[in-house]
Amino acid sequence: MIRRCRISPVRIREDRLQARLTELGHVGRTTEGGVTRLSYHHEHAEAARLTAGWMREAGADVGVDRWGNLFGLVPGIGNALPPVAAGSHLDTVPNGGIFDGGLGVVAAVEAAAALHEAGVVLHHPLLLLAFAEEEGVSFGLGCLGSRGVAGRLVTLDSLADRGGRPASDWIRDFDPGVPRREMPTPMAAYLELHIEQGPMLERQGAPLAAVDAIVGIARMAFTFRGEPNHAGTTPMNARRDALWGAAELVGSVRDIARGTEGRAVGTVGQCTVTPGAANVIPGRAEVTVELRSADGRLLDALSAEIRSAASVCAGRYGLEVEHRPWWTEPPVPLSVRVRDTVVDAARDLGWPLITMSSWAGHDAKILAGVAPTGMIFVPSMRGISHSPLEKTAWEDAARGAQLLCRALERLDAWDGG
Amino acid sequence: MIRRCRISPVRIREDRLQARLTELGHVGRTTEGGVTRLSYHHEHAEAARLTAGWMREAGADVGVDRWGNLFGLVPGIGNALPPVAAGSHLDTVPNGGIFDGGLGVVAAVEAAAALHEAGVVLHHPLLLLAFAEEEGVSFGLGCLGSRGVAGRLVTLDSLADRGGRPASDWIRDFDPGVPRREMPTPMAAYLELHIEQGPMLERQGAPLAAVDAIVGIARMAFTFRGEPNHAGTTPMNARRDALWGAAELVGSVRDIARGTEGRAVGTVGQCTVTPGAANVIPGRAEVTVELRSADGRLLDALSAEIRSAASVCAGRYGLEVEHRPWWTEPPVPLSVRVRDTVVDAARDLGWPLITMSSWAGHDAKILAGVAPTGMIFVPSMRGISHSPLEKTAWEDAARGAQLLCRALERLDAWDGG
Repeated sequence: MIRRCRISPVRIREDRLQARLTELGHVGRTTEGGVTRLSYHHEHAEAARLTAGWMREAGADVGVDRWGNLFGLVPGIGNALPPVAAGSHLDTVPNGGIFDGGLGVVAAVEAAAALHEAGVVLHHPLLLLAFAEEEGVSFGLGCLGSRGVAGRLVTLDSLADRGGRPASDWIRDFDPGVPRREMPTPMAAYLELHIEQGPMLERQGAPLAAVDAIVGIARMAFTFRGEPNHAGTTPMNARRDALWGAAELVGSVRDIARGTEGRAVGTVGQCTVTPGAANVIPGRAEVTVELRSADGRLLDALSAEIRSAASVCAGRYGLEVEHRPWWTEPPVPLSVRVRDTVVDAARDLGWPLITMSSWAGHDAKILAGVAPTGMIFVPSMRGISHSPLEKTAWEDAARGAQLLCRALERLDAWDGG
Repeated sequence: MIRRCRISPVRIREDRLQARLTELGHVGRTTEGGVTRLSYHHEHAEAARLTAGWMREAGADVGVDRWGNLFGLVPGIGNALPPVAAGSHLDTVPNGGIFDGGLGVVAAVEAAAALHEAGVVLHHPLLLLAFAEEEGVSFGLGCLGSRGVAGRLVTLDSLADRGGRPASDWIRDFDPGVPRREMPTPMAAYLELHIEQGPMLERQGAPLAAVDAIVGIARMAFTFRGEPNHAGTTPMNARRDALWGAAELVGSVRDIARGTEGRAVGTVGQCTVTPGAANVIPGRAEVTVELRSADGRLLDALSAEIRSAASVCAGRYGLEVEHRPWWTEPPVPLSVRVRDTVVDAARDLGWPLITMSSWAGHDAKILAGVAPTGMIFVPSMRGISHSPLEKTAWEDAARGAQLLCRALERLDAWDGG
């Protein structure tokens, strides 16, 4: 089978991929040129209905599970085998782009369609996935759909939208016109095509990446306390200005993250000053620090380094500083075997491919807990995402879909192929 | 006359000063141990009624002018002469201290009482002043009462409290049981005793200061603009983090102000970050900068230096920066002649006295526009003011009142004395 494909791989249809993703992108279109498809809302249901039709065309039997995930199952030769799965998510952030999530869903369906039309039947069933609520916009919890599939969401009971409406009500009323079913698990493998959402591929002139890990995240807050005082009568050398400490920490976070030479990033995204009047010396300043790295030990070391930098900043200006760890998600390594398969598939197609970590979270991070999981990245123009300006060249999108298709064939060959 | 006073100056009564200021401090007492006397509110009227009684005891004829300022006029030998004036303000910030304003009012009344009881009649009439709305809490404009007296407030029409009630209604209903009258102007001189509200006297171990100027204030805002972006997928070297520029400016303001070695202070009191999420790189950061100096040219030079520092901070991180001047109040030099008179009075009393600038605004700043004006400072413990913890030792307060009394005698000798 592998030999056959090397000589003449199944070809996806770039025109159809573009047409379908464009059509999907009109569901929830905003006046600013972006797309808003909040999970379980009308637009999400419409997008799922559309996608379900395409899944059926590709020979899949469709269903929606109890988390609102749409799936399509294409029978394989050996239907006792666990399915090989591919997909991404259908929901978007408010006024986001059409590629984030949508590309991975449409590409998986396109791969199935191409195989179907080429008369290729895989040994494994092929599971097409269109997850719900990856973005976490509605209930404050990202990857809700994939968490459900992976058994990492025992109950929906604690989740509600800002207006207090329970997630379970939203999901109950979610009706894309597809039967409710249990999703077939376990999976033999899961492979997700996604836009990079960063500028690395574009900067390196690389068209494709295999992802080796999803970075870990450490989020914390620091509160500096000094003495609020009169901005006129307090001499410079008598001040205990909390913002002096916080501002210096902003620079430390930047310099420490830069010092890792690409192995970590660090961000101060919030800075709040109290009392916050132009003529009062800040008595209190609070900043958040977020660190990300694919290297868990580095992440821990950087967290410690930032904590000690905060103490130094505080000490320098006679301040007190309180450190509040917020949460930490350790990095998730993806399957080496899936990655090797993607690398082989790229070689089949004669395309260069780099290996990189994903600096953002994805459903693949969750699926990695229950199945050998991999990801393929294609370039994001200027690294922009979560914006109407989000864009991936159609040529790059098609190359990603083609690689996905080829890699699915190769994954199918793992056992029994 | 001066010779007589040198040998046996009129003595104020420290016990009465303390008793009266303590009594005044109970008007508007808060549960936190501070005092809230908002202008034209019930507590202000009660404080004015109390003060008016003390003024009458000291031989003054009392009135309230159309700005709500209480005044008492003690006749002099030469009633054609313009009055020598002394006083301060009766209003406080919310939950402030009892000394800010109150000391200057009670001390002026005490000086008049001491002169009265010693049988000393000045050549000039003596004008005792208890200004309204110095703090600017009610209508957003400080020194409202003294502005009115100085002709720097053409109309009250544009002023209203937060609830929309016009200042003119407040003043109309302000009733301390004292007849409405025009305040006698012009004045021969105005001298105000006030607590320092800063730590300089305490730090220098000096009991008294003559004030040579009220510092000027330059207030401005800077908005740094970068690119809001994903805190994970954007590599450190691809970031345009607006907070990097703002944080660096915080340090520049501190260092530039420190570099003046006490001739100026600089404060960043507000810092606002947008979008302000822990996982989004700040696309926008806004800071206020307030500079104060008694040297107008230095103030201008520092403002320019801060503007150029902001450009450097922006340039370093690929940001744009917008400078928005807010307002500038030039420094106000006080009368050298009044200061020399205060210096002489301190010498009469055998007390050391330093000269310093006032780093906060006062009614004297306004009066300086229409009369030779001076100020006397006494120490604030730990420099604390606008707080229930505001405190001046009674011994220091009495020393200030005694110096005020002696200086009024010497001011009276300027012409015709």
